[in-house]
Amino acid sequence: MRIVLDAMGGDYGPEVTVPGGIQAANDYGINIIFTGDADRIRKELQKYDYPKEHVEVIHCSEEINNKDQPVAAIRRKKDSSMVVGLNLVKEKKADAIISAGNTGALLAGGLFILGRIKGIDRPALAPVYPTTKGVSILIDGGANADCKPRNFLEFGIMGNIYASKVLNIKSPKICIANIGTEEGKGNDITKEAYKLCKDAKFNFAGNVEARDIPSGYADVIITDGFTGNIILKLTEGIAGTIFSELKNEFTKNTLRKLAAAILKTGLKDFKTKFDYTEYGGAPFLGVQGNLIKAHGSSDAKAIKNAIRQATNFVKNNVVEEISKEIFRLGED
Amino acid sequence: MRIVLDAMGGDYGPEVTVPGGIQAANDYGINIIFTGDADRIRKELQKYDYPKEHVEVIHCSEEINNKDQPVAAIRRKKDSSMVVGLNLVKEKKADAIISAGNTGALLAGGLFILGRIKGIDRPALAPVYPTTKGVSILIDGGANADCKPRNFLEFGIMGNIYASKVLNIKSPKICIANIGTEEGKGNDITKEAYKLCKDAKFNFAGNVEARDIPSGYADVIITDGFTGNIILKLTEGIAGTIFSELKNEFTKNTLRKLAAAILKTGLKDFKTKFDYTEYGGAPFLGVQGNLIKAHGSSDAKAIKNAIRQATNFVKNNVVEEISKEIFRLGED
Repeated sequence: MRIVLDAMGGDYGPEVTVPGGIQAANDYGINIIFTGDADRIRKELQKYDYPKEHVEVIHCSEEINNKDQPVAAIRRKKDSSMVVGLNLVKEKKADAIISAGNTGALLAGGLFILGRIKGIDRPALAPVYPTTKGVSILIDGGANADCKPRNFLEFGIMGNIYASKVLNIKSPKICIANIGTEEGKGNDITKEAYKLCKDAKFNFAGNVEARDIPSGYADVIITDGFTGNIILKLTEGIAGTIFSELKNEFTKNTLRKLAAAILKTGLKDFKTKFDYTEYGGAPFLGVQGNLIKAHGSSDAKAIKNAIRQATNFVKNNVVEEISKEIFRLGED
Repeated sequence: MRIVLDAMGGDYGPEVTVPGGIQAANDYGINIIFTGDADRIRKELQKYDYPKEHVEVIHCSEEINNKDQPVAAIRRKKDSSMVVGLNLVKEKKADAIISAGNTGALLAGGLFILGRIKGIDRPALAPVYPTTKGVSILIDGGANADCKPRNFLEFGIMGNIYASKVLNIKSPKICIANIGTEEGKGNDITKEAYKLCKDAKFNFAGNVEARDIPSGYADVIITDGFTGNIILKLTEGIAGTIFSELKNEFTKNTLRKLAAAILKTGLKDFKTKFDYTEYGGAPFLGVQGNLIKAHGSSDAKAIKNAIRQATNFVKNNVVEEISKEIFRLGED
């Protein structure tokens, strides 16, 4: 298996992507192709022991950064680590690509270079959402701010394959994120989407209220990209706020500090459980290739986890499975 | 000042609304009119000391419950505590009404009985959202699942009056809840709403990402009722999940239990800070009268706080201020 890693992507570049990629090459016995500034990549590589026959470096003279306008960057920066990497997947020279770079550019690149799976109108980001029960899949996490009801059905089909094939959840419970549980609740789009999903072949379990998302009521939460992004970022914001406020309370005096020290392991276990970087990145489902968006602030471990996740997508033929399911839908 | 309290509303009815109302009558020197089952109300009243000249009971033979279909209930149950109460406000026999009853029915009643303020297309719920800095106002909290860009402008005008007149925030910072900060980010509605709000007379501060809502970046968050409701309920869900998970971690062994006991006050202070019932209920802004929706699970203190909030709406002529502002907008 050959996985491309955009070595220049993310807040830290090769300093983080290189050790992440090498750990994955070591642990999973796969080939890693680094795309990017060869000098910087090699400089990092020298610091580690790694199986040389499993690591390749492809030099790229350009780099897409977070300030670049996504579509223009993909069109113009032909020799960027991201575009070169995507082309490797397109040309079947690699089985998957991981990038922690400019999200908009990566999605645009996925659409323009890899292309849509036939029958999929809107490819979507599908990050994991850690819950008290384990993880849910949220789709769309932000690729499509405006959606049509039909897109919810596609999200359900793709989320179902991800949850069942990659996460091994048996008959995943698929719900629409909504403002009430009963059919007929919601805005115009979710009401129409409900009707379409009722007849779908996946295990549609109706609406999930936002209140019940953190407890893991749904295995797959389908939603438009605007709402999905609000859900993800609000979760981040609230968790961050609660922890910093608790920290304030827990350090107000020496006694409290002592008590908090005792609870440190508990707090750490808790944080680990809800740390989404443990689970890898967000696949961009619906394009003709395995594409994983890793978080911009990924550390080496998060990069390694995203690579592990990519290998699962490859092994389980997720792209092919989506093609088959969406084709079957067209036949009905 | 005369405030109507729908005595039958909420999960507990007169057992909670009566002590809440009496405390308010005692503390704020206002008149409370209880509407509902007179026998049950009098039975509760007997338990307390209260200024008899400030308390009135109006018997109603009907009650709207949470299972009632909102519009049908308002049309048919003419002698319900909610409809009778709303009519008292309409006929200027009372200055405001508070109900913890069926939200849909109360909003429908607000629209049909009190009517819209001229120029307001969509009255909206405006709950407070506790933040690390204090509170923000979220508008719309769920009255209008589908909105037009123009509605965002109305929400901004009404939220501005609420925040400045009632909460005494000087030149409140008003933002659109969105998935990016720059102009041009978002879905079709938020993009159009941004253009309208740019020219508004309130202090429009652009978009706020969901991540920055809990830290109080915006004083007033304007959003469609679908997104607003997702934000409110997700916040509830995440906070609940985090606390129950922390409790699990903090009670795993005796040492941790001891440590957690020391931190109890800290945890309590924290919880109080983020307890929205401290701040009253959610006003339904844009109707011709002061209408406050209290949370269904309100206890007596929450009811009392909602009454205090209602007195502030009356004192500050919020309905009149909104009428003036929206009229001025039409003149431009």
